[in-house]
Amino acid sequence: MREIGIGIIGGGYMGKAHAVAMSAVGTVFDTALRPRLEMVAASSPESAERYCAAYGFARGTGDWRALVEDPRVEAVVIAAPQETHREIADAAFARGKPVMCEKPLGASVEDARAMVAAAEASGVANMVGFNYIRTPASQFARQLIAEGAIGEVTWFRGEHTEDFLADPETPFNWRCEGAANGTLGDLAPHMVNAALALLGPIASLSVNMETVHRNRPGGRVDNDDQAQLMCRFARGTMGQMHFSRIATGRKMGYAYEITGTKGAIRFDQEDQNAIHLYRAEGPEAARGFTRILTGPAHPDYLPFCQGPGHGTGYQDQIIIEARDFLRAIETGETVWPSFRDGLEVARVIETARASAHEGRWLDVETE
Amino acid sequence: MREIGIGIIGGGYMGKAHAVAMSAVGTVFDTALRPRLEMVAASSPESAERYCAAYGFARGTGDWRALVEDPRVEAVVIAAPQETHREIADAAFARGKPVMCEKPLGASVEDARAMVAAAEASGVANMVGFNYIRTPASQFARQLIAEGAIGEVTWFRGEHTEDFLADPETPFNWRCEGAANGTLGDLAPHMVNAALALLGPIASLSVNMETVHRNRPGGRVDNDDQAQLMCRFARGTMGQMHFSRIATGRKMGYAYEITGTKGAIRFDQEDQNAIHLYRAEGPEAARGFTRILTGPAHPDYLPFCQGPGHGTGYQDQIIIEARDFLRAIETGETVWPSFRDGLEVARVIETARASAHEGRWLDVETE
Amino acid sequence: MREIGIGIIGGGYMGKAHAVAMSAVGTVFDTALRPRLEMVAASSPESAERYCAAYGFARGTGDWRALVEDPRVEAVVIAAPQETHREIADAAFARGKPVMCEKPLGASVEDARAMVAAAEASGVANMVGFNYIRTPASQFARQLIAEGAIGEVTWFRGEHTEDFLADPETPFNWRCEGAANGTLGDLAPHMVNAALALLGPIASLSVNMETVHRNRPGGRVDNDDQAQLMCRFARGTMGQMHFSRIATGRKMGYAYEITGTKGAIRFDQEDQNAIHLYRAEGPEAARGFTRILTGPAHPDYLPFCQGPGHGTGYQDQIIIEARDFLRAIETGETVWPSFRDGLEVARVIETARASAHEGRWLDVETE
Amino acid sequence: MREIGIGIIGGGYMGKAHAVAMSAVGTVFDTALRPRLEMVAASSPESAERYCAAYGFARGTGDWRALVEDPRVEAVVIAAPQETHREIADAAFARGKPVMCEKPLGASVEDARAMVAAAEASGVANMVGFNYIRTPASQFARQLIAEGAIGEVTWFRGEHTEDFLADPETPFNWRCEGAANGTLGDLAPHMVNAALALLGPIASLSVNMETVHRNRPGGRVDNDDQAQLMCRFARGTMGQMHFSRIATGRKMGYAYEITGTKGAIRFDQEDQNAIHLYRAEGPEAARGFTRILTGPAHPDYLPFCQGPGHGTGYQDQIIIEARDFLRAIETGETVWPSFRDGLEVARVIETARASAHEGRWLDVETE
Ligand SMILES: NC(=O)C1=CN([C@@H]2O[C@H](COP(=O)(O)OP(=O)(O)OC[C@H]3O[C@@H](n4cnc5c(N)ncnc54)[C@H](O)[C@@H]3O)[C@@H](O)[C@H]2O)C=CC1
Ligand SMILES: NC(=O)C1=CN([C@@H]2O[C@H](COP(=O)(O)OP(=O)(O)OC[C@H]3O[C@@H](n4cnc5c(N)ncnc54)[C@H](O)[C@@H]3O)[C@@H](O)[C@H]2O)C=CC1
Ligand SMILES: NC(=O)C1=CN([C@@H]2O[C@H](COP(=O)(O)OP(=O)(O)OC[C@H]3O[C@@H](n4cnc5c(N)ncnc54)[C@H](O)[C@@H]3O)[C@@H](O)[C@H]2O)C=CC1
Ligand SMILES: NC(=O)C1=CN([C@@H]2O[C@H](COP(=O)(O)OP(=O)(O)OC[C@H]3O[C@@H](n4cnc5c(N)ncnc54)[C@H](O)[C@@H]3O)[C@@H](O)[C@H]2O)C=CC1
Repeated sequence: MREIGIGIIGGGYMGKAHAVAMSAVGTVFDTALRPRLEMVAASSPESAERYCAAYGFARGTGDWRALVEDPRVEAVVIAAPQETHREIADAAFARGKPVMCEKPLGASVEDARAMVAAAEASGVANMVGFNYIRTPASQFARQLIAEGAIGEVTWFRGEHTEDFLADPETPFNWRCEGAANGTLGDLAPHMVNAALALLGPIASLSVNMETVHRNRPGGRVDNDDQAQLMCRFARGTMGQMHFSRIATGRKMGYAYEITGTKGAIRFDQEDQNAIHLYRAEGPEAARGFTRILTGPAHPDYLPFCQGPGHGTGYQDQIIIEARDFLRAIETGETVWPSFRDGLEVARVIETARASAHEGRWLDVETE
Repeated sequence: MREIGIGIIGGGYMGKAHAVAMSAVGTVFDTALRPRLEMVAASSPESAERYCAAYGFARGTGDWRALVEDPRVEAVVIAAPQETHREIADAAFARGKPVMCEKPLGASVEDARAMVAAAEASGVANMVGFNYIRTPASQFARQLIAEGAIGEVTWFRGEHTEDFLADPETPFNWRCEGAANGTLGDLAPHMVNAALALLGPIASLSVNMETVHRNRPGGRVDNDDQAQLMCRFARGTMGQMHFSRIATGRKMGYAYEITGTKGAIRFDQEDQNAIHLYRAEGPEAARGFTRILTGPAHPDYLPFCQGPGHGTGYQDQIIIEARDFLRAIETGETVWPSFRDGLEVARVIETARASAHEGRWLDVETE
Repeated sequence: MREIGIGIIGGGYMGKAHAVAMSAVGTVFDTALRPRLEMVAASSPESAERYCAAYGFARGTGDWRALVEDPRVEAVVIAAPQETHREIADAAFARGKPVMCEKPLGASVEDARAMVAAAEASGVANMVGFNYIRTPASQFARQLIAEGAIGEVTWFRGEHTEDFLADPETPFNWRCEGAANGTLGDLAPHMVNAALALLGPIASLSVNMETVHRNRPGGRVDNDDQAQLMCRFARGTMGQMHFSRIATGRKMGYAYEITGTKGAIRFDQEDQNAIHLYRAEGPEAARGFTRILTGPAHPDYLPFCQGPGHGTGYQDQIIIEARDFLRAIETGETVWPSFRDGLEVARVIETARASAHEGRWLDVETE
Repeated sequence: MREIGIGIIGGGYMGKAHAVAMSAVGTVFDTALRPRLEMVAASSPESAERYCAAYGFARGTGDWRALVEDPRVEAVVIAAPQETHREIADAAFARGKPVMCEKPLGASVEDARAMVAAAEASGVANMVGFNYIRTPASQFARQLIAEGAIGEVTWFRGEHTEDFLADPETPFNWRCEGAANGTLGDLAPHMVNAALALLGPIASLSVNMETVHRNRPGGRVDNDDQAQLMCRFARGTMGQMHFSRIATGRKMGYAYEITGTKGAIRFDQEDQNAIHLYRAEGPEAARGFTRILTGPAHPDYLPFCQGPGHGTGYQDQIIIEARDFLRAIETGETVWPSFRDGLEVARVIETARASAHEGRWLDVETE
């Protein structure tokens, strides 16, 4: 057990989540490295000071470079907007500091490509914050598919839908401009990552995308409100996805259904402690989808609670990420999902956007 | 109250369903016309005899022409395979007899077009058997959308998925050959009809279709196991659909979700007596999807039962159809869905098939 | 196949349900006896005339004795209020006519006892209308328990809850007076019958009962709004029940959960086409409640539909009853639930009422 | 922001949960007092050392007295078995140290009474660990009832059911002996506390209790496997409860349904991020139970996540408790649930046990 100084850039939604995770992860997982909240950076000294006090960091700064360069900061978490990811990561890697970067990996596929190069050149730990796939339920889904529990996979449907911009009267905000902040740029990466993790590479796709609410109080929206796609996985499976920020009624619509020749899986993040499994075996009269509550028998659940069905939550996903990031730093081994995995996602998103513009099927190029 | 002699062609799955419906409809709905099970036709005199006895018809015949021509048969129900629909309908209309035809309307868009022409030339009642949209729940969904209860519609997702051919070891049968008997030809019409009924015409679509299990014991499959589509409705709404007969675990996966600016609707035929409605109104803390159990307050429920939540079933949908068919005969008014509505569906299916072959977006032509 | 003349007394909620069932049952089940709607009796000639026309009976009468005595009426269905059951049944049995009587069996345990005596003396078919236990799902639950699929049964919880009198402003009506029309008298019999069918006799019980809304517009309520009980089954299992007509939000709250050493069953009539089964076997990680949709693999489903998950409804339960009643008449065999089964229920209800008044545990006497 | 040294007695299931909570609470809630994991006590020096290292405490001890007396330990958390609660609490209060004690409050009502006296004599913060009622959903339920959202409450049903001893072959362990470790002693307190929090005092009750599996490999069970009760709340409401550790299939069956004249609430901890609310208002056709996903609009949710529906878990409940305990220490104000609240629960449990033995209704005495 050794302490490690953590610097977090950003103290908003995700900056706080990572600060909590770093506070708790050692106790939850008995990690070899024990985080110390060393420094937080924000867009101004004042907000940095506020986050510093609220979350219990030793110091705050209005300049992320100061954080990256600080000798007591031994690992960097990037929880600032996508436009900042690349420059920060470059600076951290240049100093040989491990980086955990929030999704998406940069604001474009070029960013992602450059970030992978920098990460791999530095040789230090690098990881992307795809947290939803970390639930015990979704980890279990991966296991089931890998083990062949549902046979040969014949269908995938995924969605990431929320309704935070469903009301056309919701005022214009930063999420309303820039491709990286639209639905494809901001929400889709989570589900695309899930699709890749569950079924492997996507070979080709055809996308339809649109801005439903073009005008909002305060500004004109220039990015997408929703998108859908049809795709073909490299393994041959047919797939379908939908991404939306105007899905009225959906709060955390990260959901998938996966069908195989011998069974099927259904999952919805709005009931994240359950996974539904169908198996085409045994007498017909007893078949159906089984609602399995996660518990100690499922991946990464036990350290949170000894009782099955007692449940984990959003914050726990980030704690699981922190455990892996620390392990990567400690062991020097690559951890999933690395920047390279983030780049795979970025390439799918890029191709999706191109397909939407051209209105036709496109292959997803391999690097 | 006047008796009417009914002739049903086919005594299998749907032939029986219509025979039951004709037996019960008068008592359920106090119809002006009261059906008399006059005659049943099947592919052989023997099976006709069996159906005749089992269902309680006055007579049976191995020759559908005998049925159509019989003076005591005053209205014809076609519950034989799609390939037979056109010829039978033509013959019935030629004799001025009303026709209720099972879905799809013929085996091709040409069939459908010819059948509409014959129906309209004859001027007698004509109707297509899209029964699922008849549940009190789906009728209520139509009402809600028409009234604007969920605002401007921004998204539609529909599926018709079952698993009767999910097992690759299930032997080859007649559903495994001929486009009209594949997933797009056989299952899709129900959901396409629903989409049209709920949201209006589809302007364009892009389809992906495949045969997952090409070889089965007993033969080589030449039609589609599953298909998916992206579409744009004429009203501007983005849509997505999926059709499958290999959806392991799905028994009656006729399901849709419809999102609007002020609310959303979710329905799944596997829980046909409930509909889920979200309304973006009232305090945030009290919002969510409301599971509404159908009851006397919903369309066509009361005649089946005075108690809410007591439920209707598959057979009741056919009884509701029978009520409308009798009403059309009695009043001479067009009833929904008429052959023309069946043709609209056929055109979408035809365009879908073309899109799948060409691998690109196509417009759905209007006649 | 032989016709049989049916006389139904009562043309309200249940009278109509039985009329529909008698119209459809022959076609659905290919019964040896085929009902003919011969006569309907109501409280006045006018209403009888209305029912006669609406449901398609040959004749109507304001005097139930005329019906019972009519030679063309070969079997009698009692669908009039509980106070009338005994007298009508007596008259029918005296003429050797089979009787299907709506639940409860008479207005008191004395009625029930006398009715059993009359039925058994006559030797003709007799049956009580406990319809809910007839769903394919509940029949399957019976099978599962009988086969030991959930091991030794350790717990039973049942409820029959609805909300038709939940609003204290709902005006006084006939259900508001007379023990036989209160919650214990009117609703409880269904669930008590289910409990007996599923687990066998109840040995003892302790009951709590109350009238929540004593005054209603139009009158003072003299019977119970809700009741609950703890019980011990003769097989040793602990049980719990709840009955309510003021259960706001519950429309058809006929629900039970049954726990055993090797599994558990959950059922709710508000989702009548599904049953939830847990089995304590296989790997821990894959256990959970399986939502089984009823289909052709379950009792009495196939005659209604060939497709699983397509669903049956309230009316279909009555059709299943009709099939059994006809079979009993045809074969002369006792059919479940006979009047004797209705008496078992009546004795439990009677003991429950006594326990509620005395505020203590009472044994349920065996005859 | 000031540091406070925390000593935790017990490092098992709950000892760890509190250690995690104390690590995270400051960052989550920006508390005025910031916990420092000062010392952990266990039943042996070795296990204490293990916990110390794993969870990140400064020191460990095999003697809880050393912990209580340590000057750097400023507040004590008791997470050892019920038999130890009283002695430890007494010692801590004697030194003027605040105590957070896991449920139940001691091993008997005498313990609880003595502990309240000691706590009140000391005048320092005291709190009992009823965590399940802390979810945003259950806190919201309390609010709804208090505000009259469901009108006058007419019915309460609660259960706390799990299946950790459902298999009769599960070997004998400490939970199998001693009233305090049986189902009534161990599980019931959570739901009784919920009942009191939601509806207020229980006036009287009648209980039925049993040991289903008397013999287990390794020993003879002397306490209860399951119990049920009927009760009357002081406000007049009728209630029903069930507690079980042999409820096959139930993992976290902490569930309740509360009915009122204007609405109803349903909650099940196995889906802890949702609460179901029915309101008897608006058009009949749109009524039903609304599944509300918890989010920033609900109590104590926002500090965990800005997104609604993203979910909290078991561990987060303990973090909320820690926040309140720290607040109580800081402000000197009584916090809910205090030892006095724990005593209320203990009195109900005691009366329940007496009722079970006497087999009759008993009043719950007020102190
Ligand atoms: N994994 C997940 O579930 C989620 C991930 N995200 C991702 O996390 C990242 C941050 O998003 P949110 O936390 O939602 O944003 P936010 O708006 O809540 O917070 C952004 C933070 O970045 C800081 N910041 C902005 N520019 C900066 C600069 N130049 N130097 C230093 N600090 C700067 C701001 O002061 C603020 O503290 C984004 O990349 C976003 O895509 C966001 C939400 C959920
Ligand atoms: N609305 C719905 O839910 C469903 C509709 N259908 C439709 O109903 C129609 C019939 O399908 P099923 O009942 O499933 O088929 P089936 O195979 O169960 O029965 C077909 C019947 O048609 C009769 N038949 C075949 N050729 C004939 C001929 N030349 N002359 C007279 N009778 C002939 C056969 O004897 C048999 O009785 C099809 O168009 C199908 O698409 C089928 C199933 C469900
Ligand atoms: N199995 C079930 O799900 C249900 C069973 N029931 C039972 O069915 C029976 C009838 O109840 P509902 O149909 O709800 O009542 P209802 O009030 O709807 O109809 C009662 C019918 O009985 C007739 N009637 C009354 N007194 C008569 C008399 N002296 N002679 C001839 N006809 C007379 C009335 O004219 C009316 O047609 C009751 O025993 C009730 O407990 C009622 C509802 C549901
Ligand atoms: N709120 C909740 O959800 C739950 C509460 N509990 C309660 O928490 C308490 C502890 O239960 P668990 O954590 O499940 O037990 P456990 O068996 O997992 O751990 C008990 C701990 O107490 C320690 N201990 C035992 N005797 C001791 C002594 N004399 N001195 C110092 N340490 C001692 C042991 O070393 C062990 O670390 C009990 O009162 C129990 O009722 C337990 C589980 C869940």
